[in-house]
Amino acid sequence: MRRAQAGETVLLVNERDRRRFVRTLEPGKSLQTHRGKVEYDHLIGQPLGAEIRTHLGFPYYLLLPTTDDLVSNAIRKSQIIFPKDAGYIVMKLGIRAGSTFIEAGTGSGGLCVAMATIVGDTGHVYSYDVRVGMQDYARQNLRRAGMTSRVTLKSRDAREGFDERDVDAVFLDMLPPHECIDQARQSLRGSGVLGWLVPTANQVIDLLKVLYASPDYGFFEVEELILRSYKPVVARLRPEDQIVGHTGYLVFARAVMSREVKLSEELEDNPDDSSPIVED
Amino acid sequence: MRRAQAGETVLLVNERDRRRFVRTLEPGKSLQTHRGKVEYDHLIGQPLGAEIRTHLGFPYYLLLPTTDDLVSNAIRKSQIIFPKDAGYIVMKLGIRAGSTFIEAGTGSGGLCVAMATIVGDTGHVYSYDVRVGMQDYARQNLRRAGMTSRVTLKSRDAREGFDERDVDAVFLDMLPPHECIDQARQSLRGSGVLGWLVPTANQVIDLLKVLYASPDYGFFEVEELILRSYKPVVARLRPEDQIVGHTGYLVFARAVMSREVKLSEELEDNPDDSSPIVED
Amino acid sequence: MRRAQAGETVLLVNERDRRRFVRTLEPGKSLQTHRGKVEYDHLIGQPLGAEIRTHLGFPYYLLLPTTDDLVSNAIRKSQIIFPKDAGYIVMKLGIRAGSTFIEAGTGSGGLCVAMATIVGDTGHVYSYDVRVGMQDYARQNLRRAGMTSRVTLKSRDAREGFDERDVDAVFLDMLPPHECIDQARQSLRGSGVLGWLVPTANQVIDLLKVLYASPDYGFFEVEELILRSYKPVVARLRPEDQIVGHTGYLVFARAVMSREVKLSEELEDNPDDSSPIVED
Amino acid sequence: MRRAQAGETVLLVNERDRRRFVRTLEPGKSLQTHRGKVEYDHLIGQPLGAEIRTHLGFPYYLLLPTTDDLVSNAIRKSQIIFPKDAGYIVMKLGIRAGSTFIEAGTGSGGLCVAMATIVGDTGHVYSYDVRVGMQDYARQNLRRAGMTSRVTLKSRDAREGFDERDVDAVFLDMLPPHECIDQARQSLRGSGVLGWLVPTANQVIDLLKVLYASPDYGFFEVEELILRSYKPVVARLRPEDQIVGHTGYLVFARAVMSREVKLSEELEDNPDDSSPIVED
Repeated sequence: MRRAQAGETVLLVNERDRRRFVRTLEPGKSLQTHRGKVEYDHLIGQPLGAEIRTHLGFPYYLLLPTTDDLVSNAIRKSQIIFPKDAGYIVMKLGIRAGSTFIEAGTGSGGLCVAMATIVGDTGHVYSYDVRVGMQDYARQNLRRAGMTSRVTLKSRDAREGFDERDVDAVFLDMLPPHECIDQARQSLRGSGVLGWLVPTANQVIDLLKVLYASPDYGFFEVEELILRSYKPVVARLRPEDQIVGHTGYLVFARAVMSREVKLSEELEDNPDDSSPIVED
Repeated sequence: MRRAQAGETVLLVNERDRRRFVRTLEPGKSLQTHRGKVEYDHLIGQPLGAEIRTHLGFPYYLLLPTTDDLVSNAIRKSQIIFPKDAGYIVMKLGIRAGSTFIEAGTGSGGLCVAMATIVGDTGHVYSYDVRVGMQDYARQNLRRAGMTSRVTLKSRDAREGFDERDVDAVFLDMLPPHECIDQARQSLRGSGVLGWLVPTANQVIDLLKVLYASPDYGFFEVEELILRSYKPVVARLRPEDQIVGHTGYLVFARAVMSREVKLSEELEDNPDDSSPIVED
Repeated sequence: MRRAQAGETVLLVNERDRRRFVRTLEPGKSLQTHRGKVEYDHLIGQPLGAEIRTHLGFPYYLLLPTTDDLVSNAIRKSQIIFPKDAGYIVMKLGIRAGSTFIEAGTGSGGLCVAMATIVGDTGHVYSYDVRVGMQDYARQNLRRAGMTSRVTLKSRDAREGFDERDVDAVFLDMLPPHECIDQARQSLRGSGVLGWLVPTANQVIDLLKVLYASPDYGFFEVEELILRSYKPVVARLRPEDQIVGHTGYLVFARAVMSREVKLSEELEDNPDDSSPIVED
Repeated sequence: MRRAQAGETVLLVNERDRRRFVRTLEPGKSLQTHRGKVEYDHLIGQPLGAEIRTHLGFPYYLLLPTTDDLVSNAIRKSQIIFPKDAGYIVMKLGIRAGSTFIEAGTGSGGLCVAMATIVGDTGHVYSYDVRVGMQDYARQNLRRAGMTSRVTLKSRDAREGFDERDVDAVFLDMLPPHECIDQARQSLRGSGVLGWLVPTANQVIDLLKVLYASPDYGFFEVEELILRSYKPVVARLRPEDQIVGHTGYLVFARAVMSREVKLSEELEDNPDDSSPIVED
């Protein structure tokens, strides 16, 4: 049976209540909730998954946070990345243990946190943002998630270029989206993937225009993920009445060598590339 | 500039053609395609992202595969996991560098491969499947992806229980889905997440029934992800005509200690838990 | 140029404001809005589409309401039908000018209003509801829409059967959904369509169970319509952030003669019936 | 009990087979299917909903077609309208018994047929198409559906304008979509609705640009309908694996008088107009 340890990041959550707390168990400190106080010294050593109580008797579960918890409960100034998008970005960019990854901009640091959990101690995340003060939120979210050592925050304009070379993937969450593709190519290893989360159809069109005109990228994809949650009720299973209708268009491109510039219209006549077949 | 190395797993792909090859660059060996032969010795040392040619002059890009590539191009006997689902499972189960993870069943090994890329050398994947011969496909997909050392395949019935203890997450991709939740609880650390990909609404209902009757799990979620791909054409941006309408319902539950059994109907009166607020 | 006439049902709407008014232009009467008063005598004779003003100078457009306007702006006690569903029901039930149509229950009368606009003076709508007082809303919505003469409201329990025979279609919006299929069959002409809007997956399953056990129906369909609205902004076209995730499952069955009872499982092996081919 | 009559349009369909036949029961004629012949004289007088057999014993149900049947089984040269879109267009354009309606272009006549069933004998459909020979398909589909008398086909270029005045609604299914809005305004009554089915996001943007620059239209809406079909199997209810991902963006605008030209960007600051509230 695993027990909560000093210095560990935990999630305290009441199953009926909307309030959730992601905190580091620092000995001697405590959490003050609106329903009572919790001493961290009382939590350290408790079994993970246990129900603990505040001094007023209000119950919370003591959990280790998932990546979804870390991202969804991050302190936010700007719109945070949604876990549905973050998870798909991991797959499409090929982020894995040991990967090096650049993002711009940092925003509230949600994607930073998610990527840091995955690249581990053998990889690294470099996150650029020029907006003053924005990285303070990211810094706080990274600290709470215990991910500080895996992320380097740089307070710089991505248009000036990135310091790193041969990184595995780059993600641009900036406006306008079509800027910085040359800077990204300078830093990407060949075949590395560049990704974007783009709010509007106009921006997707502008971005594709720039990509098709570049010799440096190929294999363009535009996708959207729609998450549909259900009410988990045995006798009345049904989708939620209201759902998020749009977070953004996900765009992906791959760094290639000396690619000839070509027109997007050519693609029209191509066989569908969406369900690849393996020939063995 | 990074170059392809001997022993590295690469993806060879023609941008207009549907054929893609995930292969390990073993010196002295070669790939025979329907459009000519490629000697691996000629690939080793080439820049990643370069366009290389078969002896008949047919071009392929030399790429490192993303996780999406590894999963989508896996050799398959059964239905393979979709990257949209695999990525979300990573977020919801909190799979990260160093995680230990059990899945049952193995199937063609798509989820195995994806999870192995993420847990890295400091974590481990244990995959159970009782079906004779099924793990041969998984074994081949793992070898091609270079993930063999991170995965232990066990040819065993999950109903007999799992050998591991205190693992971070368990995923059950078996029929019927509601079996083995006790076995999973034996192996999960407290607060670890148990996940399922469930084909039918009936199975979701049956699974929820079992979960609500168990004292060992809480925080149930039922979700679906719909992926919508667009034709990436500058002058005619639009969604694909045909899309995948259903891969499965994603269900998640969290291992807790001594949870009181309760009725799902109670949830009806609860405040919506779907957009948690952080109180700081 | 068409002008508003006395006795005509109009829609008054301000383009920036959420308030909309569906009203009958009765000479001598007026509308009191929170932004001033409008005398109907001043509206009668104005061109349709004109911008008119309250005595405080607040502008409203003078429009004839579409069916969407009538349904979306109906006074409601219960959940009103959504126009996306109402329109599809028209197509699937084959409601047309001259059709006779039964529904149970009436609810707030949204579907009544929509169907009455379509069946015209040569068809008729019969609407049953046993709940006391519920039909008062429907009556008011029908009067405003000018549809009173085309609809007969019956304050009766549908389980006691319907008075009409050989009607073209029946729609059941009652709980539980699987009741009254025999009563509906008594009233439907052969090949007429019976439809439902069913809130939960459990109810769909229960309903299908009853339908497959009945010799009276065939050609079962279960469908859902998801409406995605976009922000109509030239420079920033994008989907709305929040959308309605679920209104209900639409189920359709067709009245047939002497159909043999059969198992739904047989369908598994059938060729897909979803994209019929015409052979000529 | 209603029986099939001479001259009536019927649908013959086998429940397991994909073949469906929409035919008029002309005395003395017959239908030759690949599974045998059916004499119409044998069908006339049979109860609707009955199972009849070919001379080879193959069974077909004798049904009256719904609008969905008429549209989905239309003979097609071009892409036919989908019933989900046709039904929603009925609601948004306010097509009802007695309406007058113009469309351009005719295409294979699917929307023509659907609208003709609804406007009835007291309304009328005017359909323009300049493409040579295209209206032959529409003519055949209208004849089979028994709708010929309600539709006037005009072999003319919509850019030359429409002959009719004060019609209730206009639908433009032409490329490029933003042409002909002045011609449509000439023919629309004030407050009448103009609708489009637009294939690409670029065209939506171009169309909105033209609409915002026009003083003649207001109340712009851009929407999409996604239809999700389920396998209707009692023990395994689940969505279909493959669905139609895109038919087109539905755009709606309303004819107004002397509207000031305005920038779409203004809308950004508006309260959400999507869920109107009735004030009474």
